[in-house]
Amino acid sequence: MRDFLPAEKARRERVLAVIRRRYRAHGFDEIETPVMEDHARLHAGIGGDNEKLAYNVLKRGLDADAIRAAADDPAELADLGLRYDLTVPLARFYASHRADLPAVFRAVQIAPVWRAERPQKGRYRQFMQCDIDIVGDASPRAEAELIVATLDAVDALGLDGSRVRINDRRALDWMLESFGFAPDERPAVLITIDKLDKAGPAGVVAELRDRAATPAAVERFEAFLVRPRTREQHPFGESQIRDALPEGAPDDVVAHLVGIGAAVAASRPASAQPGDLPLAFDPFLVRGMGYYTGTIFELAHPSVDYSLGGGGRYDGMIGRFLGQEVPAVGFSLGFERLVDLVADSADDDERAIVLVHDREVALGELLALKAALTADGARVRLEQRPKNLKALLERAASDGYTSFATVSTGATPDTLDYKPLT
Amino acid sequence: MRDFLPAEKARRERVLAVIRRRYRAHGFDEIETPVMEDHARLHAGIGGDNEKLAYNVLKRGLDADAIRAAADDPAELADLGLRYDLTVPLARFYASHRADLPAVFRAVQIAPVWRAERPQKGRYRQFMQCDIDIVGDASPRAEAELIVATLDAVDALGLDGSRVRINDRRALDWMLESFGFAPDERPAVLITIDKLDKAGPAGVVAELRDRAATPAAVERFEAFLVRPRTREQHPFGESQIRDALPEGAPDDVVAHLVGIGAAVAASRPASAQPGDLPLAFDPFLVRGMGYYTGTIFELAHPSVDYSLGGGGRYDGMIGRFLGQEVPAVGFSLGFERLVDLVADSADDDERAIVLVHDREVALGELLALKAALTADGARVRLEQRPKNLKALLERAASDGYTSFATVSTGATPDTLDYKPLT
Repeated sequence: MRDFLPAEKARRERVLAVIRRRYRAHGFDEIETPVMEDHARLHAGIGGDNEKLAYNVLKRGLDADAIRAAADDPAELADLGLRYDLTVPLARFYASHRADLPAVFRAVQIAPVWRAERPQKGRYRQFMQCDIDIVGDASPRAEAELIVATLDAVDALGLDGSRVRINDRRALDWMLESFGFAPDERPAVLITIDKLDKAGPAGVVAELRDRAATPAAVERFEAFLVRPRTREQHPFGESQIRDALPEGAPDDVVAHLVGIGAAVAASRPASAQPGDLPLAFDPFLVRGMGYYTGTIFELAHPSVDYSLGGGGRYDGMIGRFLGQEVPAVGFSLGFERLVDLVADSADDDERAIVLVHDREVALGELLALKAALTADGARVRLEQRPKNLKALLERAASDGYTSFATVSTGATPDTLDYKPLT
Repeated sequence: MRDFLPAEKARRERVLAVIRRRYRAHGFDEIETPVMEDHARLHAGIGGDNEKLAYNVLKRGLDADAIRAAADDPAELADLGLRYDLTVPLARFYASHRADLPAVFRAVQIAPVWRAERPQKGRYRQFMQCDIDIVGDASPRAEAELIVATLDAVDALGLDGSRVRINDRRALDWMLESFGFAPDERPAVLITIDKLDKAGPAGVVAELRDRAATPAAVERFEAFLVRPRTREQHPFGESQIRDALPEGAPDDVVAHLVGIGAAVAASRPASAQPGDLPLAFDPFLVRGMGYYTGTIFELAHPSVDYSLGGGGRYDGMIGRFLGQEVPAVGFSLGFERLVDLVADSADDDERAIVLVHDREVALGELLALKAALTADGARVRLEQRPKNLKALLERAASDGYTSFATVSTGATPDTLDYKPLT
C-alpha cells in the first residue's frame, strides 16, 4: 500500500479524469458502492482465487467466549470484508437497485480494491480499478460498446495503437472437448494453456504431459498448436475465426464473435480501412476468473508485453444475487499499469504561481496579493525565501507550478516580475 | 454504508470537483494515503473516542491456537484498521515524507473514512471528508489561509454567507482555571460546556451542579455566563475578544486570535467593510477531539443550525510520529452535510443525448451514429424504444441527459430531430 505525494497524486487524478470523461461520453454512468461488503457475499465462491486474498473485517464487540468459539471457524470472527474486485459489488448493486436503473444499464466504477498479495514489484495491496459493465444486453453490441469505449479512453491518454485480443470461453470448452480432454481435467488444462505466452507451445505441451493429461488429447492439441499459423495476426471475419479453430466450431459462438467484429467496425470512423480493426481473435486466450461464461478479452499495447486490462461476459453472476438470470459483460482497465505508461502533461491552461517573499514583507500585503491572484483564476503558493531557493523552485515545478515571482513591499499583481519555472 | 446511483454520484463528483479546484487555487496540494493504517497507530490514544469506532482488519493466516490465545486480548487479532479520520494518516504521512515536502506543507485530502457508528439518520459508517492542513507554520497566517480557502470553497458551492466561529483551547483552559475548576474535573466541564448551544446557560449550569463540580467555580462560571452579552455577535478585534473573556486573558492567546482576524481581513476584497469579516469569536466553542492544542473553529451557515465543518491546531500530534515537534493546523469540511445543501446544477456545457431506436434499425447504423456524436464531444446513450417511453425519458433526464432523438434507418447526426428533455 502506497502514499501518493502531490506530483504523483495530481498525475493520477489527471489520468482518472480523462478516463471518466471518455466513459461518460460513451453513455456509461458512474456509480459508487461501499468499500466493505458482507463477508458471506465476498466468500460465496464467485470471486475465485481472489476470495483467498480478501481482507476481512473483525466483528465489533466480540467477547473472549465468542473469540474462543471461533478458533475452529475463523469466518465467525468477521462480518465484513474489503472488496477484492468491482464485479461482485456491481452484481449486488444491480440486484438491489434494478427497479431504478435503465433496462440496459451501462455502469462505470472508478475505485480502489484490496488484495492481500505477497508484496512484489508492480503488485499493490490497494490499487485502482476502472471498470465499465453493461447489464441487460446479451447481444454482441454490448461487447462492442465496451471495446469501443475502452479503446477511445486509452487513445485519449495517448496510448493509441492499442488492440483487443478476443476469445470465448465456450469456444475454449468446445475445443478441449473436441481434442478429447476429460471434463474433470479441463480446468487444469486451461491453467496450463494460459501460460502459452510465457512458456511457448513446447512448454505448454510438456507441462500437459507432466500433468498426465489424456495422452491422445495432448497429441491432438499439439498437432493443432504447431500447425502453420501466426498468432494474433488474423483480421476478424468469420473465415478467419473458423480458420483459427479446429474444424466444426459451434455456429452460435462464431456468430457472436463475428457480430462483435461487425459492431466494432461500424463504430469506427468511415475513413478507417477494414484491416485497421483493432481486434485479434486468440483461440488460446484464457483469463483466470471462473465466472466468465462467454466472450473474454484483453487489452494489449505494442509498447508492453503485459495486458493493460481485460474482461468478459459473466451471464451467471447477477442471477446469484437476483434469483433471475441477467446477461452482463464488463471491461476493466488496469489503472496502475496504465498510469505508468501515460506521458505526463501538466494542465496547460493553469496559471500556477509561487510567490517568494522575504521576512520583512507584511503578512497583510502577502495575503492580499495571493487573494487577488487567486480570485483572478490562478493557483498560488506562498513561500518564504529559504537559503536554497533553487531547491524550493525545483520542488514547486515538480508539483506543477509554472512560474514564480519575488514579492517586495508594495508589489501588486501587475507589477510583479513573473519568471518561468522549468 | 450507502450505494450511490448515477444521478447522486454525478452530483457528489460535481461538488468534489469544485472543492478540489478551489483548494488547489489556494496552493493546497492533494495527497492520498492508503485506507488502512497499522492497528497500533490507529489505537495510540490520539484519535479520541473515534478509536473505539474503528473497523479493525483481521490478521491473515491466523490458526486456531493464535485465535484462542487472543481471546483475552482481541487487539492481537488485528494488524490493520480502516482510518477513522484523515488527521492521523496525515501526521504519519508527514513524518514519513518530510524530506520530500515543502517547509510549509499545505495538504488537501479528499477521501472516505469509516466509523462503526450506531445507524441513525444523517450518520453514515462510510463518509467523505475534505481536509486541508498546513504543517510547519505556527503563525496565525496558517489559520487564516485555511479559513479563507474554506470560505472560498463553500462560496463557490453557492453557500455564501458562511461564517467561522473561533476559539482557542488555551483560552478555554485558562478560563476554567481562572474560575477555579480543578485540573482533573476540567475535561468533564468542557464536555458539559460543549452542550451550551442545545442546553442553554441554565442547562449547562444545572449539569455542572449535578456533576458535583467545585461549587465556587460553578458560581463564578454562572455569573460570567449570564452577564449581558450577545453570543457570536462580536466583530473580531482585540477589545471585542478581551471583552468576551474574563479579565486578564493571556496576551499570547489574544494576540494569536487578533492575528488571525487581521490576516483574514487582509485576504478579503478591498471593497469589503471591516464589519463584514466572516468570523465570530466564541469563548464557549469546545470541539470534541482531544488532540487540539490551540485555535479551534467551526464553519456555520445561516440556513442550518449544525456546523458544516471544523478544525483546529494540533501542534503535538506530528511529534508523536516524528519525534520532533512540528506545528500543524487543519480544517475539515463535513462533505455529507454540505452536499445535501448545495443546489443541484447539471453540467451546462455538456451535450447529453439519448438516441431512441426501433428494433428494425441496423446495429451498424446505430453504432456509427453514436460514434459520430461521441467524437463530436457529446455524451450518448442508446435506448431501444420501450412500451413506456415517458418513464425512460424521465430516468434519462434524472441521469443528466438534456435531449433525445428518435433514430430511423438512414438517419445522420445532422438530420436527427433533437428534442429537449425536461
